[in-house]
Amino acid sequence: MSDQATRGRGRPRAEEGLDGRAAILTATGEEFAERGYAGTSLRGVAKRAGVDPALVHHYFGDKTGLFSAILDAPDAIQEGFLRILDGPRDVLAADYVRFALTLYEDPAQREQMTALIRTSLGSGGMADLAKVFVADEVNERFAAIAAGPDAAFRAELVSAQLLGLFTVRYVLALEPIASASIDEVVARVAPTIHRYLFED
Amino acid sequence: MSDQATRGRGRPRAEEGLDGRAAILTATGEEFAERGYAGTSLRGVAKRAGVDPALVHHYFGDKTGLFSAILDAPDAIQEGFLRILDGPRDVLAADYVRFALTLYEDPAQREQMTALIRTSLGSGGMADLAKVFVADEVNERFAAIAAGPDAAFRAELVSAQLLGLFTVRYVLALEPIASASIDEVVARVAPTIHRYLFED
Repeated sequence: MSDQATRGRGRPRAEEGLDGRAAILTATGEEFAERGYAGTSLRGVAKRAGVDPALVHHYFGDKTGLFSAILDAPDAIQEGFLRILDGPRDVLAADYVRFALTLYEDPAQREQMTALIRTSLGSGGMADLAKVFVADEVNERFAAIAAGPDAAFRAELVSAQLLGLFTVRYVLALEPIASASIDEVVARVAPTIHRYLFED
Repeated sequence: MSDQATRGRGRPRAEEGLDGRAAILTATGEEFAERGYAGTSLRGVAKRAGVDPALVHHYFGDKTGLFSAILDAPDAIQEGFLRILDGPRDVLAADYVRFALTLYEDPAQREQMTALIRTSLGSGGMADLAKVFVADEVNERFAAIAAGPDAAFRAELVSAQLLGLFTVRYVLALEPIASASIDEVVARVAPTIHRYLFED
């Protein structure tokens, strides 16, 4: 399918020179972040992306497909997280928190994460998908490196702390955390993550 | 206005023998928790409460009024939290976490808190009201007892940790935290709260 044939409505994202698929993904992140899962429609995403709804359907099928697609982190980011989790334990927590905060300086990544938090707290069917994502993609990896018989509990405490931190800093944008430097946040929060994973 | 005159639809809450105002508040918590702020209507609340919509309007005005009303914790609960914050520092964090977790064993309190979290993460105007509530009612009180020049930052880290914990345990109900005993959660999380407030 030619992008040329399906654009041409003068909508913003495609006008920025993004190709159809990238324009749709960016628009999806924005729509989920602003409207939550329930309020997002394929038509609304297509409109914001500046493409025909048929193109959204062609690439992603339905709203579930769109949601799955925005959960997929680029390989480079996944590899970065995995490298930290494989690294030395004494710096693991600080490196992880710093990597995440640095990543979310990027507006597109921040939008995707905000959408994930908003969606996972909704009551629609997508909330389950988001929960599975957190359980499989995040908690299991932390559980694999955490100490002791309650590794799964420790891993989930890490997720709980990071979820609360990201919600306050990015979704709610509450001050002073929203404007604190990455160094300030790492200095306070990394010891918590370290303790949840490795200490009593 | 007589409750008798405005009930009589055979709806659940009023049937349980709650008076009109209590039935409306309970129904409001349930509707906010299930549908979020945007999905909740005065009519829906009235239907669930088993009262006439006019009675909801009479007591609370509009949806903003309903939301403000469910943010008001009963005096006994507020006094409990304030007594802990006034208490000795070495047990303050553990007492606070334990008090909150014990409070949320009560389904009505849990619903109210879940509604507050869901609403504060929405994008409607009510999100601002919820943020002001957290900033004024929670963060300021922790900031008043926290150590050092960055007391406001420390207080907000406490809120971030508790928000993440309550979200995972009650809103998302992720295991193993959702089913962990209060003792287990206090043992792991209270040291974090203590450190955010009082230590480096």
